[in-house]
Amino acid sequence: MENTKIEFEIAPELIRQEIATTLKSTPASLAEMMAHLSNSQGKNIRGYLAALTAADQAQMVGTSAIKAAAAIEILHLASLVHDDIIDEADTRRGKPSLHAKYGKKNAVIAGDYLFCLCFSLISEAYSQGTSVEYIDRISDFSKAMSALCLGEIHQSKHNFDFDLTLKNYLKIIGGKTASLFALSMYSGARAGGLDHQSAKVYGRIGSYFGIIFQLIDDCLDYEGEAGVAQKPVGKDLREGIITLPLIYALKRDPQIKEAFAIGIPDETIFDQMILKVKALGGVDHTKALAYKYYMKTAKLISGLEDPFKKLELNKMLDRIYDRKM
Amino acid sequence: MENTKIEFEIAPELIRQEIATTLKSTPASLAEMMAHLSNSQGKNIRGYLAALTAADQAQMVGTSAIKAAAAIEILHLASLVHDDIIDEADTRRGKPSLHAKYGKKNAVIAGDYLFCLCFSLISEAYSQGTSVEYIDRISDFSKAMSALCLGEIHQSKHNFDFDLTLKNYLKIIGGKTASLFALSMYSGARAGGLDHQSAKVYGRIGSYFGIIFQLIDDCLDYEGEAGVAQKPVGKDLREGIITLPLIYALKRDPQIKEAFAIGIPDETIFDQMILKVKALGGVDHTKALAYKYYMKTAKLISGLEDPFKKLELNKMLDRIYDRKM
Repeated sequence: MENTKIEFEIAPELIRQEIATTLKSTPASLAEMMAHLSNSQGKNIRGYLAALTAADQAQMVGTSAIKAAAAIEILHLASLVHDDIIDEADTRRGKPSLHAKYGKKNAVIAGDYLFCLCFSLISEAYSQGTSVEYIDRISDFSKAMSALCLGEIHQSKHNFDFDLTLKNYLKIIGGKTASLFALSMYSGARAGGLDHQSAKVYGRIGSYFGIIFQLIDDCLDYEGEAGVAQKPVGKDLREGIITLPLIYALKRDPQIKEAFAIGIPDETIFDQMILKVKALGGVDHTKALAYKYYMKTAKLISGLEDPFKKLELNKMLDRIYDRKM
Repeated sequence: MENTKIEFEIAPELIRQEIATTLKSTPASLAEMMAHLSNSQGKNIRGYLAALTAADQAQMVGTSAIKAAAAIEILHLASLVHDDIIDEADTRRGKPSLHAKYGKKNAVIAGDYLFCLCFSLISEAYSQGTSVEYIDRISDFSKAMSALCLGEIHQSKHNFDFDLTLKNYLKIIGGKTASLFALSMYSGARAGGLDHQSAKVYGRIGSYFGIIFQLIDDCLDYEGEAGVAQKPVGKDLREGIITLPLIYALKRDPQIKEAFAIGIPDETIFDQMILKVKALGGVDHTKALAYKYYMKTAKLISGLEDPFKKLELNKMLDRIYDRKM
């Protein structure tokens, strides 16, 4: 495809359309599932970051970067579909999850199919570049996806592990969430013409964005208000996913894990634990760590040259840090 | 990587090593699962066909074709891992399936990780070529993987559908089995230097190999002897997978589906149905169709120029057609 330039302003809408077109251009047997996913698109933050980072100083961005941004969102979507199967989550983005609506079998296959769509889109996106560039981009995508899988495996290994350390927790979220954010900004920067070394700074900012995103997510699991949060409060804990609010609370009062001593406790105990974790300062402590990453990220952003990117990245930083759902 | 040439004779062993090395070079958290898969490698027929097709007239094959062959086997492995989750199969190649041994969660992720490994291997394999060649090969892999997913989705849609037609059955096996065989031989031929048009003949031979492979597989499900077949007899039927032996038997005696009229029947009924399908000639009829494809394939092979490939492909044709397990 030809890599024409468009105004960055319309990039988010074009990414949304590219995703919808890709999902809807599937054969009949998968069309219904893909339409379901297309109709519940998220905020496409990862794709937005990829396109923003690829923009030039005149705030113009190549159509190939739009395709690559859509590919990242579709990779994200693939991981969500499989994630929901793994976590047995019934809802996603306020709608029934794919496996809840179409069954596990179909959802496993649909996730695999989304991986194919992602690689097809990258092929289209980078078809104008040199062989070396192209291989590098494919390799970036495989590596990010590998890191994501490793994060998930780690999380699964530490299911209901009340001795999970901060270090291992950070390793988990570094894989399952930060790797895709890092990919977005690193590959965006490369698509925008930066060399590996310069693009790495963007990759690091992306990685921090991902960590903040996940830290806030983990707080919301303990304090989100029903109806506002798009997932039920306490979902992680019920599934045995140990996150920082709990890790911190356990440090202050190791007794709270006793509730699990004779197996999975009942609903009332879960509700009590959620209150205890909050009362012990687990959520506040997690937010404090998120703030540290906020400051580190802001510092990196301030070192960038392009004023437009600085402005937009700062906005995104606030948006990720302050989000309530 | 440099594309040095090696003797085709040692290709199968090199493919096996390449797969083992790739699987074993994974981080600790996945290492046990990958070692389990590595220790139960199959016959690597698809990889063998890819390397054979890539060989030159002096029976030498490039190391990049070996990597590509390993990538195809790893793609196949990824699909098997997810397949076993979907079909709830407890064994694979005579050993516990991955999800049976490590749980569904881990198996879903391990399958995804195998997809990553596959794309990493292709990146290495084709890194010497031009950008266009490389994109074409990635695109071939995505397309084959998409076709595979579509075949699986079709199969899932027609679960326990006793009205499944021959046409739709062939569509299912064309996707779930023939697409990877076709990829092996088409991409092997391209790696060997053939243009699209000439490589297509190899792709078609591959596709027929896949169809014959699946037809024989479906016969074995009805007649395999316990202890010889590596999967239990009647497994497909018990899972609601409708295959040609049953389709044909249903044509001759539509009554046999009555056993399912009030839900899933008990084990004795299954055993009786398997005997009935055989008695009604379902297996013989399926073998007759496999023979038709055998003849079509033999004709295509006879039209090839390289005497070594002709010889080896004919051997493989016999091996696939005559296999007892």
